[in-house]
Amino acid sequence: MNALASHAEQLVQQFNEYLEQTLNDTQTPATLLEAMRYSALADGKRVRPLLAYAAGNLFDTPPQAIHHAAAAVELIHCYSLIHDDLPAMDDDDLRRGRPTLHIAYDEAMAILAGDALQSSAFELLSDESNWPSAQHGLRATHLLAKAAGSVGMVGGQVLDIQAEGKKPSCDEIERMFLLKTGALIRVSAELGLCCCSAANDSDREAITAFGNAIGQAFQIQDDILDVVASSEDLGKPQGSDEARDKPNYALTFGMEFAQQRAKGLFEEAMSHLEPYGNKADALRWIANYIINRKK
Amino acid sequence: MNALASHAEQLVQQFNEYLEQTLNDTQTPATLLEAMRYSALADGKRVRPLLAYAAGNLFDTPPQAIHHAAAAVELIHCYSLIHDDLPAMDDDDLRRGRPTLHIAYDEAMAILAGDALQSSAFELLSDESNWPSAQHGLRATHLLAKAAGSVGMVGGQVLDIQAEGKKPSCDEIERMFLLKTGALIRVSAELGLCCCSAANDSDREAITAFGNAIGQAFQIQDDILDVVASSEDLGKPQGSDEARDKPNYALTFGMEFAQQRAKGLFEEAMSHLEPYGNKADALRWIANYIINRKK
Repeated sequence: MNALASHAEQLVQQFNEYLEQTLNDTQTPATLLEAMRYSALADGKRVRPLLAYAAGNLFDTPPQAIHHAAAAVELIHCYSLIHDDLPAMDDDDLRRGRPTLHIAYDEAMAILAGDALQSSAFELLSDESNWPSAQHGLRATHLLAKAAGSVGMVGGQVLDIQAEGKKPSCDEIERMFLLKTGALIRVSAELGLCCCSAANDSDREAITAFGNAIGQAFQIQDDILDVVASSEDLGKPQGSDEARDKPNYALTFGMEFAQQRAKGLFEEAMSHLEPYGNKADALRWIANYIINRKK
Repeated sequence: MNALASHAEQLVQQFNEYLEQTLNDTQTPATLLEAMRYSALADGKRVRPLLAYAAGNLFDTPPQAIHHAAAAVELIHCYSLIHDDLPAMDDDDLRRGRPTLHIAYDEAMAILAGDALQSSAFELLSDESNWPSAQHGLRATHLLAKAAGSVGMVGGQVLDIQAEGKKPSCDEIERMFLLKTGALIRVSAELGLCCCSAANDSDREAITAFGNAIGQAFQIQDDILDVVASSEDLGKPQGSDEARDKPNYALTFGMEFAQQRAKGLFEEAMSHLEPYGNKADALRWIANYIINRKK
């Protein structure tokens, strides 16, 4: 796995360079561009872009043909973090060890920079020159719009807020995870596949199922880390779910149950990759990273 | 013009029915869906959808083939109003005579409903079944993403905030108008044209130029109305620009200059429609409505 880890590091670097060049439209008002870059170019794990590149690997699609899709999903992720951190939402002052955007600038700029990053994601995805065909681009755009919106990430955030102070059932909390985190994780892999001209419906089904399982596992691992990891590792206060009266999967159903469930989801995800042999090694590596990460 | 006015009324009704049916995904969490509908289905002039239908008229494209494009641009407009009204932005309690969304629900829901409406716009535009071809759909999506984002509407809002308490030049304030209001007005007509298979590059240039001129005129008329219209007509406090120390075009450069500039822009817009004879009557009617409206 060492070669894969080092390849992932290289990809993150290439991705950061691509994003740096892309978020650079000189027609954007200077302060807005700075604010967008402050958030989007901050040090991040880039799990979603890595999933897109790894899905592309199934068909030997090179990273250059996937950068735009990887960036689009990461821009959606970045905008959601900015809006999540706002005083009316989670009211967080720190993100990745730095002041959150509304602290570094102000609330109005944080709202607007988030809004603009969402548009930028769709601007990138709908650029025909980035795609094998217009059909590929339109399909990807549709997938991302659904995953980001009311039946995806934003819908999940609403369910998350509504669950505060309540005791949701396992089904309810898993449905919330599937939307809040799962939709964007799943679509990262789906978007990578959209960049492969040779992918067919059965590939799409396999990758969607893989993405859903690994997306669920990602959020369960997040909840486990919220309980066991140090604040320094997390870059945010440890135990923040409990402090906010947010239902935490590991606290609600027990640490052992949470770890077993994450493992079960990981194995389910792996099963969908079987037909692809070693072409799926990069996807296996990132899935493994997701459930074994310490932050 | 009476027949055109009555046709516009019918179109607004058809549009509202389409939007009512479209914003109805039962997978959306119930409160979120209610909040999205509260804003998007509120009584509105629907100027942007009317521009899209009127542009379609140039090629006899029926409203049914334009609803999705008209709805997409209106959803972007609605989300921008929700975020504009937030306490950290304009802090408005009333919109179209009703409590603003963050008053009717709360700030978190207003942020999230706005975010979800933006995604919905791109979900509608990227649905291939709505288009003559995937290329048409991808082009439209790209146009809307640019018009909504950092080099369009959101960029203009940042310039608007930064101009508060300052005395911008005529060029600066017009550049701000071109982004803040102009981009979305222009793209409304452009999106209508995207629904016409027969439109070519020269049609697109004409409609873009028409849209830019009429978009500028729209915002200048808005500033004129902020000074002269009654609060009852506007559905918001009259004189709100002055109260907020926002540069108002009519107050900064004089009412006569503002009216003349609006008229000049109207005439410029008309000149771009000449090649289209009476097929452009609907566009002429809506342009006329824009600069002669009283609210």
